[in-house]
Amino acid sequence: MDERGKKYLLKEDREFQTDLGIIKKEQMERATIGDTIITHLDKEFKVIKPTVNDFIDLMERRCSILIQKDIGTVLARTGLGAGDRVIDAGTGAGAIALNFGNVVGDKGQVYTYEIREDFAEIAKRNIDNFGIKNIEVKNQDIKEGIDEEEIDLVFLDLPKPFEIFEDVKKALRLGGWLAVYAPYIDQAEVAYRIAKKLDFRDLTILETLEREMEIRPQGTRPKTRMVGHSGYLVFCS
Amino acid sequence: MDERGKKYLLKEDREFQTDLGIIKKEQMERATIGDTIITHLDKEFKVIKPTVNDFIDLMERRCSILIQKDIGTVLARTGLGAGDRVIDAGTGAGAIALNFGNVVGDKGQVYTYEIREDFAEIAKRNIDNFGIKNIEVKNQDIKEGIDEEEIDLVFLDLPKPFEIFEDVKKALRLGGWLAVYAPYIDQAEVAYRIAKKLDFRDLTILETLEREMEIRPQGTRPKTRMVGHSGYLVFCS
Amino acid sequence: MDERGKKYLLKEDREFQTDLGIIKKEQMERATIGDTIITHLDKEFKVIKPTVNDFIDLMERRCSILIQKDIGTVLARTGLGAGDRVIDAGTGAGAIALNFGNVVGDKGQVYTYEIREDFAEIAKRNIDNFGIKNIEVKNQDIKEGIDEEEIDLVFLDLPKPFEIFEDVKKALRLGGWLAVYAPYIDQAEVAYRIAKKLDFRDLTILETLEREMEIRPQGTRPKTRMVGHSGYLVFCS
Amino acid sequence: MDERGKKYLLKEDREFQTDLGIIKKEQMERATIGDTIITHLDKEFKVIKPTVNDFIDLMERRCSILIQKDIGTVLARTGLGAGDRVIDAGTGAGAIALNFGNVVGDKGQVYTYEIREDFAEIAKRNIDNFGIKNIEVKNQDIKEGIDEEEIDLVFLDLPKPFEIFEDVKKALRLGGWLAVYAPYIDQAEVAYRIAKKLDFRDLTILETLEREMEIRPQGTRPKTRMVGHSGYLVFCS
Repeated sequence: MDERGKKYLLKEDREFQTDLGIIKKEQMERATIGDTIITHLDKEFKVIKPTVNDFIDLMERRCSILIQKDIGTVLARTGLGAGDRVIDAGTGAGAIALNFGNVVGDKGQVYTYEIREDFAEIAKRNIDNFGIKNIEVKNQDIKEGIDEEEIDLVFLDLPKPFEIFEDVKKALRLGGWLAVYAPYIDQAEVAYRIAKKLDFRDLTILETLEREMEIRPQGTRPKTRMVGHSGYLVFCS
Repeated sequence: MDERGKKYLLKEDREFQTDLGIIKKEQMERATIGDTIITHLDKEFKVIKPTVNDFIDLMERRCSILIQKDIGTVLARTGLGAGDRVIDAGTGAGAIALNFGNVVGDKGQVYTYEIREDFAEIAKRNIDNFGIKNIEVKNQDIKEGIDEEEIDLVFLDLPKPFEIFEDVKKALRLGGWLAVYAPYIDQAEVAYRIAKKLDFRDLTILETLEREMEIRPQGTRPKTRMVGHSGYLVFCS
Repeated sequence: MDERGKKYLLKEDREFQTDLGIIKKEQMERATIGDTIITHLDKEFKVIKPTVNDFIDLMERRCSILIQKDIGTVLARTGLGAGDRVIDAGTGAGAIALNFGNVVGDKGQVYTYEIREDFAEIAKRNIDNFGIKNIEVKNQDIKEGIDEEEIDLVFLDLPKPFEIFEDVKKALRLGGWLAVYAPYIDQAEVAYRIAKKLDFRDLTILETLEREMEIRPQGTRPKTRMVGHSGYLVFCS
Repeated sequence: MDERGKKYLLKEDREFQTDLGIIKKEQMERATIGDTIITHLDKEFKVIKPTVNDFIDLMERRCSILIQKDIGTVLARTGLGAGDRVIDAGTGAGAIALNFGNVVGDKGQVYTYEIREDFAEIAKRNIDNFGIKNIEVKNQDIKEGIDEEEIDLVFLDLPKPFEIFEDVKKALRLGGWLAVYAPYIDQAEVAYRIAKKLDFRDLTILETLEREMEIRPQGTRPKTRMVGHSGYLVFCS
């Protein structure tokens, strides 16, 4: 983080150049969290512990990522916690897997399925860079089967998630949650009906609207522009 | 969980009576997660691992608790994860501390400040019952000082949270988050202005609206009734 | 209107009794707008000109009525004005016809179709009582044909509105609007697709959420409870 | 309206050029509503009766105009109808006055106050062009007094509307409405408190969110972008 509060993602093994000056390779290698580094222009950088969001903002992405408010709804509604075991498909650039990995910690585990090899590669790189060990990227089609059992949460962001609900049911522990992200109401409806047929319980379809308030000298008001929709979330257990 | 999916919170050390029959004290003591227990009326109960939400729904409460959607916004926006250290005030019945404790896990720690002794007692009981070891209930006024340092997240649900922002700033690690719950816009405004004066960064005031969709034979629609407002959340780091 | 601001709907031809005293039949007959009437308990009542909303709030109803916010959306989006000609089906208790009649005035005309005789009777009584002359209640099934032409607005609150879109198209003037109220998204979708097939233009599906703010001594906030959904409105011209 | 449904605002007294060909001055002068005009490129134009919205979309504007959803809320909540008498300040380009004029019709009257001469001129031109006779543009400061009495609706879009609430109270008929547009919550609060002090009744602060649904081949969903806020509306009578 520089003196202005701007954050950077640094690779240890090379020189780092910014408009506030150069940080040498040797400085990078020695730096640990809490250190202050001085550039050749005499500007200060602090080495901070990044949150998972800091990292996701700066990491390599080639596909859209689930927005924060929807991740929040999944975390809060399923009560995901440290030590839990999660399945996630498809991986994309790995953002949601990183969110889950961040929560479940060392004693938990995330298995993330991605059918496309290029995305799986990006995701692996991102996860390595974040330095988390509890996420296994599986470059395989989740429709061909789920290898894991006794899972606390299965999260699906797939075009036809309902095709694998029977497998999901077998993979979940008793009381575990299935959460489905569906941009279209039609997908959410089909997911709901099939989950019901398969005797899932606690079926809920949610949508979240987030408003940001602006504090200006003239007064306070919600922002003029807002995200009108990101997707529906279908939950069942 | 009974055959209908209804969940119960069981105390190991006594007989348990339901409309589906009695479970004896000996049965209760021997039961572990995954077991099936048969009542004297020949009904099946499954022993399941409760999520933090299952527990909070059934635990003892004497005050209102933060609603799930707001907890989700806090978790998602601050990127809280396993191993993090959190301060929370006021504790109330302990629900929000349990949510944080559930996420930060064994390697993390939650310090929860509660000025009222009766609430602190309820919270301690609830935390013991849930069986989590990483939450310290502190029956003291957070306005008299914060004992901890290098904290990842401070969450305040107090009438005048801004009175302690200077102390919060000292307690937070570089890059750590302050999150404030404020039911009234006026509180959120003051919190925002004071945080700005104290050079907090990334100031944001958010409000979340959650809609539930109904699937009926006639068609699909949002539910007629919804929660119109729970509170504003002020974030800064 | 009594001294507390409470409004009453008075029938001229009989004595009126309230908790603030009795108003005699003779007083009722003589009263005109602007008058002050004194009850036998010496309380004041003012005779006021009711708005269409005052009237609808107090009139006889046996069915649910479209909520105000949706009427507002129809009025604003179609630009309905004095002198316009409107078709409305089904009538119900006549509330929406009264709203339209109130706007189109003496030079305009509302034709309201209602298949059920009992509703048509209630609607006629309500319209007579409000004292408006520009609404014709037609106790006939609009599916059997629309008698009118050169209509500025057709408003449909029917289970399958799309069955009569071809007839509606013939009834509308060039540039006139069709507005459909649909509680379920499925109805709105079908209406949209059929309108598109029939070459209607300016197709839009809207939904409105209304929030009320509370001013309390402690501060300002949106109300805790709000209407989560009343219906979708499909517009085309 | 051309063959594609695009609408144009035509001046009778001159030749009209489009990418679909030229319409001669003589053709323009002869045209009446319902006519079809052929351009020199043999394209058809229909002469249609514009709604007030068609007109406002195409008229001259130099300032922002109140958005449709808010006009709808004012119309619906106050029950404005043909024959009513309205005061509106400030006029701006005249859009809201046109909306009111359109509803109150020949037997009603709109008095619109505008302090700036340039806006008052634009508004007069727009109103003349729309061809409505019931709007009087008053190029005077409404703070210096209200000339009218027995008004059904006063609508204020001013920075400090509350400064003239006493005058408004005198101008309103018993049971008439004051509606205030306030972009900031702070203005709405002050308006509310002062209205209360002045014994206005039925005080309400509303805010409306409008969502548009998208029908795509893949499915149905709310649009990604929406207007997050336009303003609060304060009502009292």
